Amino acid sequence: MILCEIGNTRYHFKQNGRIWSAPCGKVPDLKLEQDEAIYVISVNKRALRRLNAHYPVIDLEPYVSLDTEYQGLGIDRAVACMAVSDGVIVDAGTAITVDVIQNELHLGGFIYPGLAKFQSMYAQISPRLQGAISFAIDPAKLPESTIEAISYGIITPLVCAVYAVARHKQIILTGGDGGYFARYFEGSIVDQSLIFKGMEKIIKGF
Amino acid sequence: MILCEIGNTRYHFKQNGRIWSAPCGKVPDLKLEQDEAIYVISVNKRALRRLNAHYPVIDLEPYVSLDTEYQGLGIDRAVACMAVSDGVIVDAGTAITVDVIQNELHLGGFIYPGLAKFQSMYAQISPRLQGAISFAIDPAKLPESTIEAISYGIITPLVCAVYAVARHKQIILTGGDGGYFARYFEGSIVDQSLIFKGMEKIIKGF
Repeated sequence: MILCEIGNTRYHFKQNGRIWSAPCGKVPDLKLEQDEAIYVISVNKRALRRLNAHYPVIDLEPYVSLDTEYQGLGIDRAVACMAVSDGVIVDAGTAITVDVIQNELHLGGFIYPGLAKFQSMYAQISPRLQGAISFAIDPAKLPESTIEAISYGIITPLVCAVYAVARHKQIILTGGDGGYFARYFEGSIVDQSLIFKGMEKIIKGF
Repeated sequence: MILCEIGNTRYHFKQNGRIWSAPCGKVPDLKLEQDEAIYVISVNKRALRRLNAHYPVIDLEPYVSLDTEYQGLGIDRAVACMAVSDGVIVDAGTAITVDVIQNELHLGGFIYPGLAKFQSMYAQISPRLQGAISFAIDPAKLPESTIEAISYGIITPLVCAVYAVARHKQIILTGGDGGYFARYFEGSIVDQSLIFKGMEKIIKGF
């Protein structure tokens, strides 16, 4: 079985237990069984068309069902939420989405810009605000330099807001940058296969 | 007396109790007394030179003195801090800076992107994330739509982080967008003349 989640910039694959990604800019080279189709979830129609021009795909979008009042929830967020019964999902990619699930009900969520966006935004504000994000900052210690002040300004507000919405629920970190936040959430889980778990749940229901 | 704070994009003036601003792109039309100079604080050397090419200025930078361990604190932040003995300053402009002062000692602070920068970050991530920021969101209520999720993602993390560093200190809001946050901080003050108060304090010390 081959699964593919198509994001804004990358294809994310799971095949035979292996997870990898490739840029959306070109068609990835895949080995499929005869008559095998790729199960797909996509937020990027163009990249989906590009993949489908070379391989047979089965789009899981019509089968996604999540109990929520949220209008316009991204399909990738919905599928990740389907993999969780109770918890808070922090999916840190191009954007950082935070979703709260309780008894398989999606209570809502919010969207924070991704780490790379923050970095380029600070650089645009002033050349003095250019620099790498430091995950050595401590939310309990006020910054005493520009580089600390920027890293703190990205990390601490998110950490505070996630704790505020989590109310002692399990925090699950996913997405390319998810692992960086693990040290800020005691008892959190890093799970890069969350969306694939949601996809597998949908396929099992067929 | 005429005071001018020069920011990244605008000149901010105080003259005869009146406060106004003008874009840095052109030289503002000012009425000065004979031999009168403009007291200036600037984070924008080019705009300072442009002003000084047309008017006499006295740069207050050499006279700024703030008790702090912070390395590289912007001169505008330092001057605003000099106006406060105890409190948290949230200065919401192109960037949003947060500074904590206790017994006239600056304990540190952090830098968050400004509201306009957040809007352009979201728009860059996806056209679906374009929209006006709503200050009607309630941090205690999880968003149930994209526009709420974005507004919440800008406002709530900042609000949570400011409360975390404030520890019951007075919160003082300033800068062009400062007033928007007043409803999220009970008992906060909006003071658009904070930096001018710091400048006046320096001048009184002459």
